[in-house]
Amino acid sequence: MRNLSLLTDLYEFSMANGFHKDLPDTRATFDLFFRKVPDQGSFVITAGLQQIIDTLPLSFTPVDIAYFRSLHLWDEDFLNFLATFKFDCHLQAIPEGTPVFPREPLITVEGPIAQAQLLETLLLTILNHESLIATKARRMTFAAGDRPIMEFGARRAQGADSAVYGARAAVIGGVSSTSNMLAGEKFSIPVAGTMAHSWIEAYPDELTAFRQWAKFYPDNSALLVDTYDVLTSGIPNAITVFKELRASGHEPVGIRIDSGDIASLSRKARAMLDDAGFPKAKITISNALDENIIESLLHQGAPIDNFGIGEKLITSASSPVLSGVYKLAAIEQDGKLIPKIKISDSREKVTIPGKKQVYRLYREGTNKAFADLIALADEPITDQHHLDVLDSNPLSVSKVQPLNSFDAKPLLAPVDLDQKAVSPLDIQAFSKQRIAELPDETKRLTKPDSYHVYMTPQLAKLQDDLIKGK
Amino acid sequence: MRNLSLLTDLYEFSMANGFHKDLPDTRATFDLFFRKVPDQGSFVITAGLQQIIDTLPLSFTPVDIAYFRSLHLWDEDFLNFLATFKFDCHLQAIPEGTPVFPREPLITVEGPIAQAQLLETLLLTILNHESLIATKARRMTFAAGDRPIMEFGARRAQGADSAVYGARAAVIGGVSSTSNMLAGEKFSIPVAGTMAHSWIEAYPDELTAFRQWAKFYPDNSALLVDTYDVLTSGIPNAITVFKELRASGHEPVGIRIDSGDIASLSRKARAMLDDAGFPKAKITISNALDENIIESLLHQGAPIDNFGIGEKLITSASSPVLSGVYKLAAIEQDGKLIPKIKISDSREKVTIPGKKQVYRLYREGTNKAFADLIALADEPITDQHHLDVLDSNPLSVSKVQPLNSFDAKPLLAPVDLDQKAVSPLDIQAFSKQRIAELPDETKRLTKPDSYHVYMTPQLAKLQDDLIKGK
Repeated sequence: MRNLSLLTDLYEFSMANGFHKDLPDTRATFDLFFRKVPDQGSFVITAGLQQIIDTLPLSFTPVDIAYFRSLHLWDEDFLNFLATFKFDCHLQAIPEGTPVFPREPLITVEGPIAQAQLLETLLLTILNHESLIATKARRMTFAAGDRPIMEFGARRAQGADSAVYGARAAVIGGVSSTSNMLAGEKFSIPVAGTMAHSWIEAYPDELTAFRQWAKFYPDNSALLVDTYDVLTSGIPNAITVFKELRASGHEPVGIRIDSGDIASLSRKARAMLDDAGFPKAKITISNALDENIIESLLHQGAPIDNFGIGEKLITSASSPVLSGVYKLAAIEQDGKLIPKIKISDSREKVTIPGKKQVYRLYREGTNKAFADLIALADEPITDQHHLDVLDSNPLSVSKVQPLNSFDAKPLLAPVDLDQKAVSPLDIQAFSKQRIAELPDETKRLTKPDSYHVYMTPQLAKLQDDLIKGK
Repeated sequence: MRNLSLLTDLYEFSMANGFHKDLPDTRATFDLFFRKVPDQGSFVITAGLQQIIDTLPLSFTPVDIAYFRSLHLWDEDFLNFLATFKFDCHLQAIPEGTPVFPREPLITVEGPIAQAQLLETLLLTILNHESLIATKARRMTFAAGDRPIMEFGARRAQGADSAVYGARAAVIGGVSSTSNMLAGEKFSIPVAGTMAHSWIEAYPDELTAFRQWAKFYPDNSALLVDTYDVLTSGIPNAITVFKELRASGHEPVGIRIDSGDIASLSRKARAMLDDAGFPKAKITISNALDENIIESLLHQGAPIDNFGIGEKLITSASSPVLSGVYKLAAIEQDGKLIPKIKISDSREKVTIPGKKQVYRLYREGTNKAFADLIALADEPITDQHHLDVLDSNPLSVSKVQPLNSFDAKPLLAPVDLDQKAVSPLDIQAFSKQRIAELPDETKRLTKPDSYHVYMTPQLAKLQDDLIKGK
């Protein structure tokens, strides 16, 4: 595992130096949360916690310390602190794969303020990225229904980690496999792929190229049929080779189309394959797809069995940023907890103060979630049968609503830094269960119904008091 | 350096296995090029070659080989090849920082076809990403004129490499510094930063927080003034502390505004600072900026000294993919060179066959570039004074144009894998020189004039013959 402790903005160190000197005994709680869901969706699939666990605890090497010294910004006292501090931050987090909503703390960090401050950039970089891709993958797999999606965006990813951790996040979000061998090796996720156009071009003609492929991979013959012309060359040649394969006791896998009018080509290809006696040969499509094109193709009845998706998944191209933030929620001085708030010109950006817990609320005795609730960590919630709540959305009218007959399950749980990695496929299964609990209206891709995230009156009052400077 | 040899799609291995068995003595030439410039710009700044050099030669570890074996796709003969092959690929590349245009080979790879195929994904991932960010940074620095830009997008980057190599690429594209300490340490690029809102919130009030900052950093006091209210709190408190600093013999750096109506706030802030006797205190702006907002703010006369740019730079959010491709251009069998082409349904996607060189054409005896030229590698170009050329754009009419009185400089040069890394700041300086050579009309951000990329009649005839199947 690479040491990413230094994946941190300079100002975190400058602040940590000041905190170390000014507030050496102050502990702080920070919340990591987001305000907006990418693609105007209603929820995010949280991902990235395992990489955070693998990266922690923070530690700096002698090379790092020498680098700090070379900047002439900080004194030896602080450099010594960086070289020797005992990592004493405690994380709580919502498990990877959980659908989460705006304003909910996804990770809370409690620890000495200098250390907790130093975690900001690292935690955000990892969680923002992986949650973004898991969320995009979930949108695409929702559009594809039960048709498998293969992730193959590595070549258009924003660097190696974008490709590798992006592939893992895509599996969490529902894709079946990746083309990325490094991700396959590292996370034990299924790898898949067929051939590129260069295979076809390297031979004198397409038929020879297909025959040679079938010779090497008689049971894995997914043939790329659009190097020259799909209908007059690619599919006829594929059928010739499929017949030869069958004659030698093998069944073909199918074809892949990577360009052209997919709706029309896939229909014609299906008819040609069926007529030739290959109704089970699968049609895979892979031409600059996203969730909207997938929905449109399937709505047109295109007979597609599998999708291969590249750049629009691995970069979440239509919405390439998840804007998670990391905000101070409370400090603890001389055993006293002092809740903290950031007040902004914009009402939308006011933070929710205090040490908090997030609950998912279910209709009593069912697994039907109907809302989430943000409460102070020490409020009793799970054993209540009646509760007054307010909308946590700062742009909504704050009207008290009574809730009855619900079960409340806490989402934030302590993070064990020695926790062993779980398979991304298991996280995908967990994620599907959590998503199944949500109302259908919140899951549609276009104009989903918003899901309520409430807050308790006690938390609302604390926020209000701090805004008013009480 | 991490071993990224496995950052490769599965199908590259499947093809390499076939090539290794079928065409063991065949050598191939692949071209890496792009067809479209992000953000409808006219040129890309190429970047990423150094990371490619640092990653090569390809080599697979015993752990990798065991992983390959576990997939049950290939035989021991191929696994043995992967474990033992001698890397024999020769790269040519256009140097990092060069402005480059559609269809020009940025890298060519010549080597045994199995090995050259295995490089596809790795080369594309790195070059696509870094060139994308360098290009975006160039757009932003163009908009900012001579005002410095600080890159601080790490927290919104698509993973650690996106943050770290993205910071390096941003410097190549013209930014002055990064907030990213890992990039600063790794590439010796300037790091910068001030404070976050959490610094202010950790203290009982803003004035105390500013005072404590000034105590620790008396010569580095750039104060963030928008935690509560810029005009009624942030700037008055900053001025109080600036006066105290001056009284103790230090000059303040300035202020940073991270929210609100920047044009209006910056003007009022400037007036308040000037009135208080701090005309040299700088105003830094950092609120979801991109090149269009920068142009608009400066057009409105906003008195901004520095820009800090986050997510819209580090992800190239408005255009987050550079779609570079890697295509077979020729194979060599029994000492004979066979040019190769990919013919597609779409005229735009037809490739340019053969081993090639790219030339920048200058008005004779000047450093004014007026066009580029793609030619076969063995055509004599540099010593010519007259040349007939055709447009290489497959969507243009192919009319012969005579060129006279020009100098031609080749852009592709052999890559030395032992080449020592050059400072990104030096590459930035080189890049500025190369950009200065281009016509002004091709540099504007909106609707730039397209720059001609010609091809020689001999190359055009080769392409035409292959399309027609001659």
